[in-house]
Amino acid sequence: MINYNYGKNENTNWIVEETIYKEKFLGKTESTFLLGNGYFGIRSANEESTANTTRNTFISGTFNKADENEVTELPNVNDVYSLDLFVDGEQLIINDTTVTNYSKRLNVRTGLLERKMDVTNGDLVVHIATKRFISLANIHLTASVFEVTANKDVSIEFYSMIDGQVSNSGAQHFYEGEKKLIDGKYLENVIKTTQSKVEVATHVAHNFNQDIDSLIMMDRRKVGFRYRANLTSGIPFTMEKYATFTTSIDLDCQDNFVQTGLEILQDAEANGFAAELEKSVAAWNEYWNEVNIEIEGDDFTLLSVRYAQYQLRVNCPMHDERMNIGAKGLSGEGYKGHTFWDTELFMLPYFIFAQPQAARSLVKYRYHGLEGARLKAKENNYQGAMYPWEAAWPSDGEVTPVWGAADVVTGEATKIWSGFIEQHITADVIYGLWLYYQVTGDQEFMNKYGYEMIFDTANFWTSRVEMEAKGYVIKNVIGPDEYKEHVDNNSFTNYMAKWNLDLALSYVEMIDESLKADLKQKIGLNIDGWKDVSNNIFLNTPNEDNVLPQDDTYLTLDTLDLTPYKNADRVGTLFEEYSLSQVNKLQISKQADVMVLFLLMEGLFSKEVKQSSFEYYEPKTLHDSSLSLSTHVVLAQDLGNTDISEVLFERACKIDIGENMKSSDHGIHTASLGGIWQGVVYGFGGVRIVNEQLRIEPSIHSKWNKLAFRINYQSQVLAINISQQAFTVANHGSTNIKFINKGKTYDVAANDQVTINL
Amino acid sequence: MINYNYGKNENTNWIVEETIYKEKFLGKTESTFLLGNGYFGIRSANEESTANTTRNTFISGTFNKADENEVTELPNVNDVYSLDLFVDGEQLIINDTTVTNYSKRLNVRTGLLERKMDVTNGDLVVHIATKRFISLANIHLTASVFEVTANKDVSIEFYSMIDGQVSNSGAQHFYEGEKKLIDGKYLENVIKTTQSKVEVATHVAHNFNQDIDSLIMMDRRKVGFRYRANLTSGIPFTMEKYATFTTSIDLDCQDNFVQTGLEILQDAEANGFAAELEKSVAAWNEYWNEVNIEIEGDDFTLLSVRYAQYQLRVNCPMHDERMNIGAKGLSGEGYKGHTFWDTELFMLPYFIFAQPQAARSLVKYRYHGLEGARLKAKENNYQGAMYPWEAAWPSDGEVTPVWGAADVVTGEATKIWSGFIEQHITADVIYGLWLYYQVTGDQEFMNKYGYEMIFDTANFWTSRVEMEAKGYVIKNVIGPDEYKEHVDNNSFTNYMAKWNLDLALSYVEMIDESLKADLKQKIGLNIDGWKDVSNNIFLNTPNEDNVLPQDDTYLTLDTLDLTPYKNADRVGTLFEEYSLSQVNKLQISKQADVMVLFLLMEGLFSKEVKQSSFEYYEPKTLHDSSLSLSTHVVLAQDLGNTDISEVLFERACKIDIGENMKSSDHGIHTASLGGIWQGVVYGFGGVRIVNEQLRIEPSIHSKWNKLAFRINYQSQVLAINISQQAFTVANHGSTNIKFINKGKTYDVAANDQVTINL
Repeated sequence: MINYNYGKNENTNWIVEETIYKEKFLGKTESTFLLGNGYFGIRSANEESTANTTRNTFISGTFNKADENEVTELPNVNDVYSLDLFVDGEQLIINDTTVTNYSKRLNVRTGLLERKMDVTNGDLVVHIATKRFISLANIHLTASVFEVTANKDVSIEFYSMIDGQVSNSGAQHFYEGEKKLIDGKYLENVIKTTQSKVEVATHVAHNFNQDIDSLIMMDRRKVGFRYRANLTSGIPFTMEKYATFTTSIDLDCQDNFVQTGLEILQDAEANGFAAELEKSVAAWNEYWNEVNIEIEGDDFTLLSVRYAQYQLRVNCPMHDERMNIGAKGLSGEGYKGHTFWDTELFMLPYFIFAQPQAARSLVKYRYHGLEGARLKAKENNYQGAMYPWEAAWPSDGEVTPVWGAADVVTGEATKIWSGFIEQHITADVIYGLWLYYQVTGDQEFMNKYGYEMIFDTANFWTSRVEMEAKGYVIKNVIGPDEYKEHVDNNSFTNYMAKWNLDLALSYVEMIDESLKADLKQKIGLNIDGWKDVSNNIFLNTPNEDNVLPQDDTYLTLDTLDLTPYKNADRVGTLFEEYSLSQVNKLQISKQADVMVLFLLMEGLFSKEVKQSSFEYYEPKTLHDSSLSLSTHVVLAQDLGNTDISEVLFERACKIDIGENMKSSDHGIHTASLGGIWQGVVYGFGGVRIVNEQLRIEPSIHSKWNKLAFRINYQSQVLAINISQQAFTVANHGSTNIKFINKGKTYDVAANDQVTINL
Repeated sequence: MINYNYGKNENTNWIVEETIYKEKFLGKTESTFLLGNGYFGIRSANEESTANTTRNTFISGTFNKADENEVTELPNVNDVYSLDLFVDGEQLIINDTTVTNYSKRLNVRTGLLERKMDVTNGDLVVHIATKRFISLANIHLTASVFEVTANKDVSIEFYSMIDGQVSNSGAQHFYEGEKKLIDGKYLENVIKTTQSKVEVATHVAHNFNQDIDSLIMMDRRKVGFRYRANLTSGIPFTMEKYATFTTSIDLDCQDNFVQTGLEILQDAEANGFAAELEKSVAAWNEYWNEVNIEIEGDDFTLLSVRYAQYQLRVNCPMHDERMNIGAKGLSGEGYKGHTFWDTELFMLPYFIFAQPQAARSLVKYRYHGLEGARLKAKENNYQGAMYPWEAAWPSDGEVTPVWGAADVVTGEATKIWSGFIEQHITADVIYGLWLYYQVTGDQEFMNKYGYEMIFDTANFWTSRVEMEAKGYVIKNVIGPDEYKEHVDNNSFTNYMAKWNLDLALSYVEMIDESLKADLKQKIGLNIDGWKDVSNNIFLNTPNEDNVLPQDDTYLTLDTLDLTPYKNADRVGTLFEEYSLSQVNKLQISKQADVMVLFLLMEGLFSKEVKQSSFEYYEPKTLHDSSLSLSTHVVLAQDLGNTDISEVLFERACKIDIGENMKSSDHGIHTASLGGIWQGVVYGFGGVRIVNEQLRIEPSIHSKWNKLAFRINYQSQVLAINISQQAFTVANHGSTNIKFINKGKTYDVAANDQVTINL
């Protein structure tokens, strides 16, 4: 139902548009048209009340535990956009029948959401046009225009409120708080979370293009105005609405966040909607100047990657290093705002190459998270830092919920084991740090934070392993493939643990003695233990068919024909017939597992092993996680299987903005969006860090005439321009850089470029 | 929009019916068609999700404080009736356009709710018919039938859940709790309130008339089934759904409430919908046999009074004397389930005369409430028992919220003073007790509970007054007219306080010495203080125009022409232009004030004073409280102003089931419903207790040919049959009774009757 409004022209290749109003599909564009700026996000729900609407406004980092039995989550704060219009005393009902000439569009270049429609009731036709944005220039601000034009003279009435009756699917995180009207114009509401005691101030103001009758209204958890106006046939009535959010944890204003919120509101309202939008668009222009990608010959992919870059920006709290990106960002309650390995494996590469300052903040979050990681290790009787599978506020430690969906066989709630035993996350975090360091060369970060993270995670792995006849084993884990619980020696986990230990061993030799002494004192450096475990850890090796076993038992399990589930129009259909404990006993994978290992540790296995393993596992993989496709895309492209990579890449691009109108109700798939960028830059662009060096081996999509993008590398900007015949690497920086192509090293001087034929 | 389906025939004079579907008016029949049995109540919201729907399920007595800054309230428990139907994969949308042949009807004789409609989508027409009841025979049970017939072969899909995502306008009272599937069929959810730790078990089961595909589903705060079936054109598909609610405070099963809930469910499901409905209807028949009223010549009034009697029954928790009736009963969040003077002054008379066992339970609640009343007195530095203006669990004490709606002038929340200074409630409670005793002669209740209540409230009043030159004054109160805050010597309050003291003085002389000694020890009997205050309390007297001043200053205030507000189509319009502090300074009354005093204390003032005061105050009274009209009706009738009483009586009857479709969104008006009965039996029937004697002086409505009803008096049943020309009092009891008519005493022997010409 979503139309992709793309074409030959630069201006239209930035717009995602929905052109048919369908109440049952409201969730789709509510989440995929999310507005945000990393500080906060608002689902693009319609102003009008209807069934099937989920209104969410989330502010990054405001985590709270609704009650003692729940885990901390991002709470839904005051809604500022709901509004029902009454025309001549009758509520204007918005539904599949009454709405025509509908258009809802998100411009990812400007961050502007626009909606237009005609609503018919008998001989009355009301044209509604709304605009809304969240400012990228001023992180606390959102503004909107609500325009109404009727085909005859009518009176209208509506309530415009700060609405705190929202909850997280029934869980309420806030005390009711204080409601106030200031100077007869500015609405104020200050609420506080029940457990974490974070205070959130909401301020709202309105301006109109004509006379209006207003009346202050207060209700439970609500404050606002009732407005009444008389409209002349054909003459638009417009309301500009401004809202600000500030909190007691804001680094820029926590000491006077209430007053700051009011002042920003007053300032914005004085400037007007157009001026504030212009400032925000200027900030977006700056962003796009840095990250823009060009693709010729494939408008859908161009829009998809821009859409992905838009979402990665609006969901990234780059203003505050105590915060990270949630698996659904700020677009829905799904995954509670928690951060997973999704950040390091799927999103961080984008920020490292395109927005290194943001990447630094995301990695720094994991440094702050050492506190929680040490807490988790201690609680589990291990040493060092054991990162939580799901993370919220850095000091929280593990926040994975314990109970999940119903088991179809027993009817009992399924226990979620990942918080207990999905332990590869600790090595994944270090991989993200390592990649950041490799690409940016940020030695200061390593000295202050990075080495401590690497050494203390090595300490964890050393305490985690158990000695058996075949060496040090890691028993009872979940690997990336979450359909295999309680397995021993998951290859991804064991190889990554060894890599983490080896990294610690190599760096501990290089750092200066005073830092080493400091860290020894602070965390203890079990160097002999690292060596012993690294040398003696058990590692699965490829079998006679060149297939790397996923773990000790996967290859011995029964198989099942997955065709019906792989062809289903949505994910998860297998679980309508099988319980997780049944699936645990079959060769069925949720997502890429050893494939991720192949991707991260490129030199470890031969091309033959990768190819055979790909052919073995892919038919057994349901891609039920949106993380699965991009890994397969890059790997298939690396292996030269371009027919497969191109098909899977298209599927990856369509996870959120594709034809499936039910894919994103609970929120967008931020990791998958990072995966789209990886498909382009890693897969078709051939950019990778291998053996601590930049390698560029492009091979663009068969439909494309051109792929051009920039990357940051060692504080220089490289512009890479690829056609089907050749590619050019231009160094826009001030010092020379090196890169590898097909085993050969190229040196590009500042302001120089190299062209290589393909 | 509500049609009153009444006619000549006995069977149709029991039905309230809505025949046009209007989304904006959904709230009306959700609350006015409330189902319940005193143990629990469910708003009659449609199964389907739409905007403007409020789903509420309340269980009496389960009060909880959502957080430390709020007052305790009745929490919304799991919803069991929401259900959205998907036909051939498309959600069946219910709205003003798609619904035709609509009928939603409540039969107050049987407690059965029925809804029928056709929903059209292109050439698909789906006929939906639902039935639902809450059992009067089994207080824990509700059951429903959901029937679907399509005009072609279709597949349907729907989710039928126990849904705990509900809240009280955003406030969540429950921990998420445990979800379970038992024997593959029975759904169980046990939740607990966050502060009061009341546990609530919900059990649900389904049966179908054809094969169906089912899949267990769990979500946050939800458990249920996804169902899929294939329908044949024209053949009805039916689902019977059974649900039970049991709690850890249930007197009948608190020690094993979870198991009991399951067993009742299994039993009901085995019996079937029809059999369980039959049992409930039998219980309703018993009720109507006891309380039925006959009116000839006015079908609307007949339906209104039956409707009132229905609501009084379904909202009265007569199973548990620790509970009372809320101002909106179980029909909505309004007034938080709290009990006010509404019980004693407006509803209790009905129960005393018609259902004395229920009355006993309601009065006993106030005995339990002595604990909270003493707490309140102590907190306010008074002696004895000071009843709370709003009451919840008896030991809670005062639970009136402190902040209310916005002041239109300042924009600040208005402070609700009634919890602090609306103190006449203490005497009102004693009035209710006294009336119960007068009518029932329940001496045992008095000995065990009643005298203690009377004496300890007398102790309160003694400590409450202050001596001034003009005598003991009661300063800084709110009387029944809540538009006058912080007044001195409100006449109603002072006269009722004196009456309370005099009652204590007269009873303390009559009770036996050992009881007196016990009570002296337990609560202290300040008899000298009672006498002193009673003898010296300041009481306003009628002025030269025979008008009794409402308080020390009312008659000196400015006046305002109230015509526009009195003619408005809804209450409260004055406050769109004036703030409460402005209204405080004007001769504007919310409701009856001295009129209530005239009604309760019949002999105190002359007919001239009553008439002059009526004529003075009524034009200044907005009747913004639904309590106001019935007092005016009875008083006007007593004064012989039948033109006024008949007009106001019709307005009173229409408060909930009248043409105003927005009157009852937040809940029905239980006191006003009690007032309808008072209008009939007190006003037109002329029944009253005066000077501790039963007086019967009827004068029926000019349109009526006959009014007949029964009352319980001194454990006997009297049948009173009134025409325009005469009336008969038949004694159906076993001992003779006396009554007064126009100063003459009549003695009616058992099984005898007296006829008096009018």
